[in-house]
Amino acid sequence: MKKNTECTQQFLGKQSISFAYPVYIQGYAAIVGKKEGEGPLGKCFDLVEQDDMFGQKSWEEAESIMQKRCAELVVEKTGISMEDIRLIFAGDLLAQSIASSFGIGSLDRPMYGLFGACSTMGEALGLGAMAIAGAYGDRVLAATSSHFATAEKEFRFPLEYASQRPLSAAWTVTGSGACILGSKKSNIKITGITTGRQTDYGLKDSQNMGACMAPAASSTIVQCLKDFSLNPENFDKIITGDLGYIGQQILLDMTEKEGYQITDVHEDCGILIYDQKTQDTHAGGSGCGCAAAVLTAYILPKLSSGEWKKVLYVPTGALMSKVSFYEGSSVPGIAQGVIIEHVEEEK
Amino acid sequence: MKKNTECTQQFLGKQSISFAYPVYIQGYAAIVGKKEGEGPLGKCFDLVEQDDMFGQKSWEEAESIMQKRCAELVVEKTGISMEDIRLIFAGDLLAQSIASSFGIGSLDRPMYGLFGACSTMGEALGLGAMAIAGAYGDRVLAATSSHFATAEKEFRFPLEYASQRPLSAAWTVTGSGACILGSKKSNIKITGITTGRQTDYGLKDSQNMGACMAPAASSTIVQCLKDFSLNPENFDKIITGDLGYIGQQILLDMTEKEGYQITDVHEDCGILIYDQKTQDTHAGGSGCGCAAAVLTAYILPKLSSGEWKKVLYVPTGALMSKVSFYEGSSVPGIAQGVIIEHVEEEK
Repeated sequence: MKKNTECTQQFLGKQSISFAYPVYIQGYAAIVGKKEGEGPLGKCFDLVEQDDMFGQKSWEEAESIMQKRCAELVVEKTGISMEDIRLIFAGDLLAQSIASSFGIGSLDRPMYGLFGACSTMGEALGLGAMAIAGAYGDRVLAATSSHFATAEKEFRFPLEYASQRPLSAAWTVTGSGACILGSKKSNIKITGITTGRQTDYGLKDSQNMGACMAPAASSTIVQCLKDFSLNPENFDKIITGDLGYIGQQILLDMTEKEGYQITDVHEDCGILIYDQKTQDTHAGGSGCGCAAAVLTAYILPKLSSGEWKKVLYVPTGALMSKVSFYEGSSVPGIAQGVIIEHVEEEK
Repeated sequence: MKKNTECTQQFLGKQSISFAYPVYIQGYAAIVGKKEGEGPLGKCFDLVEQDDMFGQKSWEEAESIMQKRCAELVVEKTGISMEDIRLIFAGDLLAQSIASSFGIGSLDRPMYGLFGACSTMGEALGLGAMAIAGAYGDRVLAATSSHFATAEKEFRFPLEYASQRPLSAAWTVTGSGACILGSKKSNIKITGITTGRQTDYGLKDSQNMGACMAPAASSTIVQCLKDFSLNPENFDKIITGDLGYIGQQILLDMTEKEGYQITDVHEDCGILIYDQKTQDTHAGGSGCGCAAAVLTAYILPKLSSGEWKKVLYVPTGALMSKVSFYEGSSVPGIAQGVIIEHVEEEK
């Protein structure tokens, strides 16, 4: 096709895109809550808010203001103004995405709301990269958030019940991460994406999300490696969103069965963000904000410095609601893959 | 920039994109429920299902199967196979978009979940068009759905209460619409989009969504006209999603104050789909499925035949949830604009 040769972005293999025009990550920021600040990555975040209410009257308002502040912070850190943002891609876990509508949505920029559960940061980066490489704008903002208290209220029990949590349960991260993508060169770029397909192994345990999402992570990682003709060794790290300890083990088994040994390079944002032994977080962290905050506080700085040259970032989402759970439905998973690389300085 | 001249998609004005490579609508389908089949557009839909449960056990399963069947139908009507769909953009009104996860999501294609409330079909078409014009795939599927009973359960009262509805309330459409966008020529094309910015006038009445969304519709329509240097007369129709009778009047007043007289060309999907006098639907139809089903059953056929040459399609969304309503929050609105044109036969 004329278009594809003239305008050389390409779709690759079964479900990937290789960007002919590199998409640069020009800025990134992370804001988290107190507990996340006390974890192993505590010193990496831009801001650790000690008040879980973020000065607001409700948990939902707290999450919205956290997400909005994170967007304002990344704009400030990047040295641009909010008007320079051509498009926003944002989402969260709450019903009808109200954290984003009342958060980033209030910033008066053109916006697309997304829902991919905890995979949303991967979706936002993927669509944002498509927008930049397609020349639909000079700068776009990708951001997500989650809040422990809003998620417990949305999916589980009121906090006041003090329900016991099974060891397979994850702890929803209070945090937000935001990136600015653009066409102007920086030292980190997105070179490709692998869009996720839903997988559904029929699992129904909403207190074991890692197991529900692991097949999706395996599907996206294996397809990414096939579509780009790469091996796990081509990456410094393959980092999933929030599989946690149980999901990680399932992922490693599944990818090995597909012929890919990723044990040496695999990390998981949900495992990285908390100290399981001292923080009572059981299977690990979860939530849209988990993968987003670990990306912007930990992964991108290492890619920026050149300590890592190439990372496959794979946020994972469990697609369920209270209603689907109560009606006995399974919990399908989805994972969105993004290839992020260090850019060498020109000599 | 090299990229923008080589690959001539362009962003225009404040918040629009003009596609240098036309994006063709290669197929479309609509499935609706019994009540919609009895309305003025009854004969236009591909399928009118008489059983509101669609043969399922729950309302949510009914909506999911309707959406999935609509996707299968559009693929069949277009004469392709599901594997030809490179990307799916889909969403619905339910918490955590479960209608889409258990509907179209089960089709095993690469997918991005969207949330823009009743504006979601505009969002799906916009992002789908960006994907096609950016050469990220040969064919993408854009689809949304809503169901009267799932929406009442999600946002209002159990049907069994038989609550009285104020005259300002809309009736959520049971329906789904799906389009296939592609690079291969057809007789309808998408030539531009205007991405919406949220507007919030502080209105809090979830039983008067039209008033909440009218400012967003006005904002997107006026900005579209400015960005593309067009006037209302350049369009055969400017068709909003689900403002209904009350929202329509506010929209006409607001655009007139901005210097644009759109009365002669304005239509609203929510007004078109029901007969207000005989169907007890008060302010009109609403829901993601309203704008999507009217698009695919009524608007696109008229563009295909050449009866209309150019339409500005503007689905409108009210961004709220039960929680935001109970917490006393306002109802922000958003509207996504899509310019759709008839393609003349080559002589």
